[in-house]
Amino acid sequence: MRFANRSLDPAVRKMLGEANKDGIETVWDRFELQQPQCGFGLLGICCRNCIQGPCRIDPFGNGPQKGVCGAGADLIVARNLLRSVVGGTAAHADHAYEAAEALYLAATGKAPYEIKDEAKLKSVAAKLGIETAGKDKNELAREVAETAFADFANHGTSPMKWLTATAPQERVETWGKLGVLPRNPDREIRTAMHQTGMGVDSDPVNLILSAVKLGLVDGYGGLHLATDIQDILFGTPAPVVSEANLGVLKADHVNIVIHGHVPLLSEKIVEWAKKLADEARAAGASGIQLSGICCTGNEVLMRQGVPVANNFLAQELAITTGVVDAMVVDVQCIMPSLADISACYHTKLISTMPIAKLPGAQHIPFETDKVDETARQIVRTAIEAFKNRDPQKVNVPDEKSRVIAGFSVEAIVGALSKIDSEAPLKPLVDNIANGNVLGACAVVGCNNAKVIQDSFHVTMVKELLKNNVLVVATGCAAHALGKAGFLTPEAAEKYAGDTLKAVLTAVGNAAGLNAPLPPVLHMGSCVDNSRIGDLVSALAGYLKVAVKDLPIAASAPEYQHEKAIAIGTWAVSLGVFTHLGVVPPVLGSKQVATILTSEPVESLLGGKFYVETDPVKAAEGIIAHIKDKRAKLGI
Amino acid sequence: MRFANRSLDPAVRKMLGEANKDGIETVWDRFELQQPQCGFGLLGICCRNCIQGPCRIDPFGNGPQKGVCGAGADLIVARNLLRSVVGGTAAHADHAYEAAEALYLAATGKAPYEIKDEAKLKSVAAKLGIETAGKDKNELAREVAETAFADFANHGTSPMKWLTATAPQERVETWGKLGVLPRNPDREIRTAMHQTGMGVDSDPVNLILSAVKLGLVDGYGGLHLATDIQDILFGTPAPVVSEANLGVLKADHVNIVIHGHVPLLSEKIVEWAKKLADEARAAGASGIQLSGICCTGNEVLMRQGVPVANNFLAQELAITTGVVDAMVVDVQCIMPSLADISACYHTKLISTMPIAKLPGAQHIPFETDKVDETARQIVRTAIEAFKNRDPQKVNVPDEKSRVIAGFSVEAIVGALSKIDSEAPLKPLVDNIANGNVLGACAVVGCNNAKVIQDSFHVTMVKELLKNNVLVVATGCAAHALGKAGFLTPEAAEKYAGDTLKAVLTAVGNAAGLNAPLPPVLHMGSCVDNSRIGDLVSALAGYLKVAVKDLPIAASAPEYQHEKAIAIGTWAVSLGVFTHLGVVPPVLGSKQVATILTSEPVESLLGGKFYVETDPVKAAEGIIAHIKDKRAKLGI
Repeated sequence: MRFANRSLDPAVRKMLGEANKDGIETVWDRFELQQPQCGFGLLGICCRNCIQGPCRIDPFGNGPQKGVCGAGADLIVARNLLRSVVGGTAAHADHAYEAAEALYLAATGKAPYEIKDEAKLKSVAAKLGIETAGKDKNELAREVAETAFADFANHGTSPMKWLTATAPQERVETWGKLGVLPRNPDREIRTAMHQTGMGVDSDPVNLILSAVKLGLVDGYGGLHLATDIQDILFGTPAPVVSEANLGVLKADHVNIVIHGHVPLLSEKIVEWAKKLADEARAAGASGIQLSGICCTGNEVLMRQGVPVANNFLAQELAITTGVVDAMVVDVQCIMPSLADISACYHTKLISTMPIAKLPGAQHIPFETDKVDETARQIVRTAIEAFKNRDPQKVNVPDEKSRVIAGFSVEAIVGALSKIDSEAPLKPLVDNIANGNVLGACAVVGCNNAKVIQDSFHVTMVKELLKNNVLVVATGCAAHALGKAGFLTPEAAEKYAGDTLKAVLTAVGNAAGLNAPLPPVLHMGSCVDNSRIGDLVSALAGYLKVAVKDLPIAASAPEYQHEKAIAIGTWAVSLGVFTHLGVVPPVLGSKQVATILTSEPVESLLGGKFYVETDPVKAAEGIIAHIKDKRAKLGI
Repeated sequence: MRFANRSLDPAVRKMLGEANKDGIETVWDRFELQQPQCGFGLLGICCRNCIQGPCRIDPFGNGPQKGVCGAGADLIVARNLLRSVVGGTAAHADHAYEAAEALYLAATGKAPYEIKDEAKLKSVAAKLGIETAGKDKNELAREVAETAFADFANHGTSPMKWLTATAPQERVETWGKLGVLPRNPDREIRTAMHQTGMGVDSDPVNLILSAVKLGLVDGYGGLHLATDIQDILFGTPAPVVSEANLGVLKADHVNIVIHGHVPLLSEKIVEWAKKLADEARAAGASGIQLSGICCTGNEVLMRQGVPVANNFLAQELAITTGVVDAMVVDVQCIMPSLADISACYHTKLISTMPIAKLPGAQHIPFETDKVDETARQIVRTAIEAFKNRDPQKVNVPDEKSRVIAGFSVEAIVGALSKIDSEAPLKPLVDNIANGNVLGACAVVGCNNAKVIQDSFHVTMVKELLKNNVLVVATGCAAHALGKAGFLTPEAAEKYAGDTLKAVLTAVGNAAGLNAPLPPVLHMGSCVDNSRIGDLVSALAGYLKVAVKDLPIAASAPEYQHEKAIAIGTWAVSLGVFTHLGVVPPVLGSKQVATILTSEPVESLLGGKFYVETDPVKAAEGIIAHIKDKRAKLGI
């Protein structure tokens, strides 16, 4: 089949054919044009950190083995790795900080958000040691926001509060002994940028320890903080039924695609799309259809049931359907090419964030205190654009799949408590102990043009499920699995091994679904990897073991972003065996590659990276790891 | 002459011959081995910000014009530039923050530093709007440190206090209109790292505006903050006579070379070297000779008269003299090769900072509260090492030059006030107005293996002085000019044009020197570029014009570090015409290169970058600029 080497997704293959016919350049075309990619960069042995460079190390040992300053391959690789982790961590911390700022402004009456989830607010406050009794929700929310601000203003040596309040105690002690407990997230980011400058750190091991520290900033000052605050503001997700793939776009509707990562604006767009439906009908449309791409898509799917248009690699192709009246972007993973592509259609490309503009896009600035006006203007801009559609260019593929999403930890525990209200985790743990559930794997991360879109996710997950490994998913991985039909009760029938299927059926029936739970639980966006961290921490706590001892694993089969490297570093630091399906740029240093994938990382942290580019072999490696952990637990 | 293509410095050439003979690899050897350097990197059109890459743009237009994500040359260059500025800014902000932390600990009795300069403390406090009356120095110092901390904990939208308190009002307004006033320095660093991630900002202009913002963080949250606090703790420099070049090393002394940038430890090493002189004599030495490299060298030169061993490019060669018993490094510009080279000698290489370790070095950790113990241990380690010297390897070149350093703004104003105590700046301004002094140029920055060591500094400065342009210098530029004899009264005779010479003589005589002022005033370390900023701001204030209207310029002829890019960006933002003698990696984008060197930067900020790799032509360009500004002022 045409374009089988580009994507597993039939809708994407179809649209690629159309794009090809119309001479529209896509990410795959650009990837092909970039071949061959620079071998020095791929190995991580290119340094551009000062103006004496750029320097390159000859991986064959014939040419230069040191940069101008004297940095060898180990140092260059470690330094580049830390800068990547800093880039990802800064993205997540900035996201979380914006959420905390919005919570503060909402709580003090300066931003038109309502605090939707008082139960979550109280639970977060309690974890932080904030007295909750007798406080109204705004007062409590202000104190929670101030606690976040205090982490970002910590001038002492005490570790980040959001970490000590939410990470397992065993881990806090382990990290403390290693000297990698982060203090103020911003201070750690600044210091790591300093550390990686020319002539500062020459010690690859010291740099990797800093990467671990930054990974913890990412996990707790980025992911966990963002999820906590977003749940408080917009509600903790609960299971919700929706659809995924380009077929969710409706030719007779005003289509607004929301894309990016931070839900502060998109939640309001959802609200205003409902309010302005009559205006859309007055303009000749049957209504307004919202859909999402990337993690902003996941956020509104999890909380509002907004369908998913597609994941990272197909963002351009959404526009080529000719029915996207507005694509609204916030931050991260937004291809710069979108401006060129939307210029070939009637689509209004709308940028909204001060740090993410696109030449050629219309900029409608997001400001927390005027977010309603912004959202209203965006929806109205889409309605106006609808009038300019070119019927000749309309071409919406039929493909879409039903998905069940919204599996927050609270929702999972809620479903399990239907079986055992006293000890909700017991049914899951019992079924892991008796081998009905072999273990669990978190499948997360992006698409990457180096991998046939979605194929690694799908092929590997099939193997895992067949072997009774329960899968949880986030990010573009969850989109991939959703499009491929794994987020449904039927998938339990189709893909799960017999014992896993029985457990999913029992839990689903007990939860009143009259059907099995999906074998892949959609736990949210990339920042919602914190939910997975909480789940495994809770399991470890219930079992009175460390996370590193659980029969679990994580995998980012098709990752591309620095954020994924930061998340992976956090996962390994938490003690999780973490698979990568794309080779990270570290192979130029045997020392760094060895540290990351075996000793001493595993003995110090319990987790390690596992790199395998074949999906079936990767599943085998993950299963072998799970079996090994089971054996060590004596189950 | 041998090695004339490597260095202008005769001592360096001599030692290069010895190193060559002994098979010691130096930075120049490594630079040669790196040829040819990667053209993509040199042009700035290589992107490694995500794992779909690395991507390269074909500068000839035949190959790919876009990266996988769709980023073109303009975006890639702008993004790389901003990340460089962030790297430099993070280094300076981290340095300044450590100084503020030390001041806080000293003021609260938790670190053994005395507050040496109460006058500076009061003047800084007054600028910050802190009431000084009736407060003892520790109380006031604590409040000043807390004001610094407050900038780094600012969760509001108000601009950085250290900026608004010290930058010219005209500039604050200009930056405010452009939307580039920084808030919390750390927040801006974090956000800029986020902005430069894959799929965030696609707008080169927006990225360059962020570079301006980060440049301001560098100038005020880095340079100015560091200088202010270091003056308060260790004293504001006053003119001091010393020497520069490898000849300052003494074969019969214990030699301790201090290298790096942050003087928190080195000030204590100076103290303990005096205290332990008897121990050195007991070990058979005639005493302890301290000398400095890079900016830690400048800090202790300016305040303590400690001689300079050499500048950046010759750091390795200091060790090859065979008499360096300990080289103590803190952070920045420390070649990773030092460990290999010191292993060939008896030299103890001592790292001290948690973020700057070197495999093979001895790590004696700097901790603020135990700094005396650390300094004592370091000096004793050097004394011990002295006993292991190999007399066969001792080879100290004779070359050294007399230098006068210590020209803080306070010292310059002090000298001028001997002529006019009411209006100290008047004599300087009058002499600029009447043309005796054509203008002034700050010559700053590093060495870079791409330039014959010191040659650009020296050749260009000769031209400037001949044309009656007064020169001020910092960093490795000041070392270069010091070694070449420009920091002496005799240099006024030798190099200055007639009218400049007359002014220098008049001021020197009035100041009681019985000799001219040096034609190049050594104003300190790289962070002390803030002193130059203060001087030009004061001149502009006195004249009631903007900095951008003054007949002045800045030049970084041989820069190599990201810090220099950050400083240069700040200088341009301040309104200064800023020359670069090494081509920055921006030529791959016509848009970015044009913005930086002409419109719109010049019309918006008044300053711009000027790139010229020939020293005589660079001087001509600077002089032309100065004449143009004179003409516009009608003088």
